[in-house]
Amino acid sequence: MPVLVMKFGGTSVANLDRIKRAAKRVGVEVAKGYDVIVIVSAMSGKTNEMVGWVEETSPLFDAREYDAVVSSGEAVTAGLMALTLQEMDVPARSWQGWQVPLQTTSAHSQARIEEIGTDNINQKFGEGMKVAVVAGFQGVSPEGRITTLGRGGSDTTAVAFAAAFDAERCDIYTDVDGIYTTDPRICEKARKLDKISFEEMLELASLGAKVLQTRSVELAMRYKVKLRVLSSFEEQSDEAGTLVCAEEEIMESNAVAGVAYSRDEAKLTLLSVADRPGIAAIIFNSLSEGGVNVDMIVQNISEDGRTDMTFSCPTDQVARAEQALLATKGAGELNYAELVADKDVAKVSVVGIGMRSQSGVAAKMFKVLSDEGINIKVITTSEIKISVLVDRKYMELAVQALHDAFDLDKVA
Amino acid sequence: MPVLVMKFGGTSVANLDRIKRAAKRVGVEVAKGYDVIVIVSAMSGKTNEMVGWVEETSPLFDAREYDAVVSSGEAVTAGLMALTLQEMDVPARSWQGWQVPLQTTSAHSQARIEEIGTDNINQKFGEGMKVAVVAGFQGVSPEGRITTLGRGGSDTTAVAFAAAFDAERCDIYTDVDGIYTTDPRICEKARKLDKISFEEMLELASLGAKVLQTRSVELAMRYKVKLRVLSSFEEQSDEAGTLVCAEEEIMESNAVAGVAYSRDEAKLTLLSVADRPGIAAIIFNSLSEGGVNVDMIVQNISEDGRTDMTFSCPTDQVARAEQALLATKGAGELNYAELVADKDVAKVSVVGIGMRSQSGVAAKMFKVLSDEGINIKVITTSEIKISVLVDRKYMELAVQALHDAFDLDKVA
Repeated sequence: MPVLVMKFGGTSVANLDRIKRAAKRVGVEVAKGYDVIVIVSAMSGKTNEMVGWVEETSPLFDAREYDAVVSSGEAVTAGLMALTLQEMDVPARSWQGWQVPLQTTSAHSQARIEEIGTDNINQKFGEGMKVAVVAGFQGVSPEGRITTLGRGGSDTTAVAFAAAFDAERCDIYTDVDGIYTTDPRICEKARKLDKISFEEMLELASLGAKVLQTRSVELAMRYKVKLRVLSSFEEQSDEAGTLVCAEEEIMESNAVAGVAYSRDEAKLTLLSVADRPGIAAIIFNSLSEGGVNVDMIVQNISEDGRTDMTFSCPTDQVARAEQALLATKGAGELNYAELVADKDVAKVSVVGIGMRSQSGVAAKMFKVLSDEGINIKVITTSEIKISVLVDRKYMELAVQALHDAFDLDKVA
Repeated sequence: MPVLVMKFGGTSVANLDRIKRAAKRVGVEVAKGYDVIVIVSAMSGKTNEMVGWVEETSPLFDAREYDAVVSSGEAVTAGLMALTLQEMDVPARSWQGWQVPLQTTSAHSQARIEEIGTDNINQKFGEGMKVAVVAGFQGVSPEGRITTLGRGGSDTTAVAFAAAFDAERCDIYTDVDGIYTTDPRICEKARKLDKISFEEMLELASLGAKVLQTRSVELAMRYKVKLRVLSSFEEQSDEAGTLVCAEEEIMESNAVAGVAYSRDEAKLTLLSVADRPGIAAIIFNSLSEGGVNVDMIVQNISEDGRTDMTFSCPTDQVARAEQALLATKGAGELNYAELVADKDVAKVSVVGIGMRSQSGVAAKMFKVLSDEGINIKVITTSEIKISVLVDRKYMELAVQALHDAFDLDKVA
């Protein structure tokens, strides 16, 4: 029998009615002849509640105990989902991570999947079970302790099962109906994509992170697992949602697939840094050790042996960056005149695999922004993405103008 | 190191503050030099909530899935308790049933303990761990699925661990401060017992059931595990609470240790039943198959080849009893003139191992009730218990009069 993996997030199993609705979707796929592996999250809110208890009990908690506590929510929904399917006369049973077994590293609270044993579940499929309901987000360490995979880990669980069982597809049921060309909340012309490539999905993380965990997309790309994102709150056809798939499966595409943004960026500039070999290494090593996630980096041309160094990071890490650099300066390893922080910037990016073959995307992007009177503060590019830092007040305008200019509201 | 088992029920771990209070008690015992095994229940209310979800989802639920769901509450408190102890610098870790392993039968939702593996926990004690926090109520079946032990199963878990680890004592922390001579709510002279024998504790089930699960007392008796019942809401000395122990350890005792009662009893009489061999078997087989828990049985003297048969059962089973007997009558296997049900009766019992050596307890009991004008409807006796059925309106009076007459407010 072909295998289908279906994953239901927290809002899709938030209560017994929603679990029933999800179970009906599963029943539809079983009726089509699939053996189905269902991956469930905890009821929405449950994991947060337990994380709160752990943090209140022990601010610097033992991650092994954290995992033992917070993994319990998925066990509850897995059992309830199996019972709901049984009530619909669909042969089903629940599996916890250690029962599968889903073996992980010992990196508690952010473990990585090492191997999924397929024998137990395949044996049950052979005996007539139609649905294996698996508690997402959790596994078991080599020491036999429960591990969790980090936030959004149920997506990763789902993709890993799809890879291990050579599933035809991995359907991610969530509270949105697919991946959009940009955020519909700030651009009313945003259009749902029927297909998007893994590479684009990864670059659109700032849109996709709310829908798909980045790690799950990486894993899907590596194992060529077709991922479909769709809503559990609507009746669904086989073509619903957005298919995240290999580039080859997308016939024709716009140069640009989507416009992403990140609101909470800050731009920091170190004025008058000595321009000598190794200075960048000192600066960014200091920031890395200080726990600052540096994104974009620009170095000005040098003048009189000194230069300015600009970088961006999340707004809430500015204080940490200032502290780290001041400490390095204090230790005599680094000299600079001043650190200037601009917390009122945002990042806007255009993403598309079509950029590889179609030139002029960057030029067009800069012209569009210029025509709107939006000043570009920093630019970075990758093979399939161009990102710019702009004043935050222009963020929505930039997204809308770029969405229009690249005709994202129209199918390619 | 000597091992101590400490069990905390749902109200004793109802929130983070109470878990902290319980952990402090554990710390006191660790400081005395014990290796401690802590058995925890789910936070009060959590198990009921999950049972409700299961029953709403699937009225005739698959007990294997029921177990997978309802066992999750204990995992949460075990992890939180371990974290709380770690915060107090007490080396601790949590264990779920399958990790210990605590092996049970496959009788899901009412499994029996088969074996407790001691190697894993003993190894950790050897490595310096001072407290093993074990999720109560749960185990693992030979098929590798999670089982639960039935309501109050955490008491049984605690006693089983005390037996397996040859613990010096098993302390059951609960919301009452011990076992009383009778229910303090209906007899203000009720006195807390310092010691009570296993046998008496079992007979006092109607008092003890609220405090100790009957199975845990049976198990403690078989393996000679000293059980102590005490409150988690008070500062406790080594002599606090009530010790449930072997008869030999109780030096001197009253003939009567306590007065128990059961409010919701009903008395049913089958009038004019043919008095022939096998008729009792037919009647009680019919009731048993109808799911009626018959308690006391009395047969009148025969007259003209016919007799009356009286028995008692819980009030809420009267309809079931009537139905079962009517069906048997309808099938021609039984004949009787009438079935008379009296739902306004209660059972009052005096219990004490001293009865074995001291005569006259029954006579005294009947005289006390007679002096109060209380009519006895049915009598049954065992080696250490005498029970009578009386009109429910006299129940409190009967308990108080017997408590006085047998001097239960005074230490023997």
